[in-house]
Amino acid sequence: MQQYFVAGQAQDVVTITDKDTVKHMFNVMRLTEDEEVVLVFDDHIKRLAKVIDSAEHCFEIIEELDSNVEMPVEVTIAAGFPKGDKLEFLAQKGTELGMANLWAFPADWSVVKWDGKKLAKKADKLAKIALGAAEQSKRNCIPQVTLFEKKAAFLAELEQFDKIFIAYEESAKEGETAVLARELSQVKAGEKVLFIFGPEGGISPEEIAAFEEKGGLKIGLGPRIMRAETAPLYALSSVSYALELLKQE
Amino acid sequence: MQQYFVAGQAQDVVTITDKDTVKHMFNVMRLTEDEEVVLVFDDHIKRLAKVIDSAEHCFEIIEELDSNVEMPVEVTIAAGFPKGDKLEFLAQKGTELGMANLWAFPADWSVVKWDGKKLAKKADKLAKIALGAAEQSKRNCIPQVTLFEKKAAFLAELEQFDKIFIAYEESAKEGETAVLARELSQVKAGEKVLFIFGPEGGISPEEIAAFEEKGGLKIGLGPRIMRAETAPLYALSSVSYALELLKQE
Repeated sequence: MQQYFVAGQAQDVVTITDKDTVKHMFNVMRLTEDEEVVLVFDDHIKRLAKVIDSAEHCFEIIEELDSNVEMPVEVTIAAGFPKGDKLEFLAQKGTELGMANLWAFPADWSVVKWDGKKLAKKADKLAKIALGAAEQSKRNCIPQVTLFEKKAAFLAELEQFDKIFIAYEESAKEGETAVLARELSQVKAGEKVLFIFGPEGGISPEEIAAFEEKGGLKIGLGPRIMRAETAPLYALSSVSYALELLKQE
Repeated sequence: MQQYFVAGQAQDVVTITDKDTVKHMFNVMRLTEDEEVVLVFDDHIKRLAKVIDSAEHCFEIIEELDSNVEMPVEVTIAAGFPKGDKLEFLAQKGTELGMANLWAFPADWSVVKWDGKKLAKKADKLAKIALGAAEQSKRNCIPQVTLFEKKAAFLAELEQFDKIFIAYEESAKEGETAVLARELSQVKAGEKVLFIFGPEGGISPEEIAAFEEKGGLKIGLGPRIMRAETAPLYALSSVSYALELLKQE
């Protein structure tokens, strides 16, 4: 069933006002009276709703649905600005894989230079992709996108995390395989976990030192070299496997 | 360091004859005498080699390198023919994530219909993508691509596997999370593991029955709905996490 995110609090009768949502509901899906959809308000609870007036874009809430597909921990993916449309790829695939937040920052070895105007435009595009992917993959939350213009602003945010993992190619080459598995076996529900990835050229030694000063742990993600946009998918899948599949065994 | 796959057995002195490889070595990378590369012959061992004659495309082997990045089990990804260029995406990303073979077959609910001629062309393209990705991610093996024109031919190949997993969306919806983790904790090095994925529309009940008759186990891959091309990446990452990271803990 089609799912839509709706800003605001749930009420018994809801009128949809967001233009893009209205367009998709009544022009693309051509919803008519009594047809049902799932609506997700700011409380992240899914509710079954049916159209009571298609001209007025008006729905009646039928019931709450017992469906929570969010990860037990809040995973933020932070990437050094990568080339091309890799962040767009990450916004889509990371959302399918359970990411809570997508962050990006200007890394020492980022080739692209994006100014404030470009970043605002890109953040807007990424937010739209994350919204669409969140609806498709039936998420309860829309991943939030933050693009930092200055690395200092990104570093200032690291304090809030319970675990910080630095995906470090050299760790992988040295055969480091134990840290991520050990740490994931210890995380508790509700904790905030950050994975930091470099751009194509990797993370500079100064950045490694800065992240480690904030409590970051270098991790290897298996022995193979992955592209900048592939490693975050491995990390998200691993968190899901460790906390959603393995813990249920 | 640049890596190349070379067909045949290793010898002390090797002349490269494959046109694409020669072109990349001497036109793109502009290798000259004494420059070094990594060559991987049919025995899947990496060897350091240096150019001894760039006009004749001739290398001398210096030494074997102790680098094996292959998964401890041989993982085959089989996908019902998906729309568009999703197999191309899988050939690249699956190779980075350690896939041994990429198979595809005409599933009941595949929308695309590909004839033998189209399949031969597509297989050729996919093999090239897998080769390039295998060189980039420093694999010891090039994933082999097989596109089955008839589903019966695909089914006939299932006997060879030690484990067959059927990625089944309904299992995910029902909250099935235990089977994959349980089975991965029991696989032994060298075993052959197959993951079967449906096309966009999913796997038909008749197909599920046919796969189960061959020993296939339905598995859930976490609670979120993933696109057809994303689920295989989750599966490959999980195998790596379970067998390469967790077992080393």
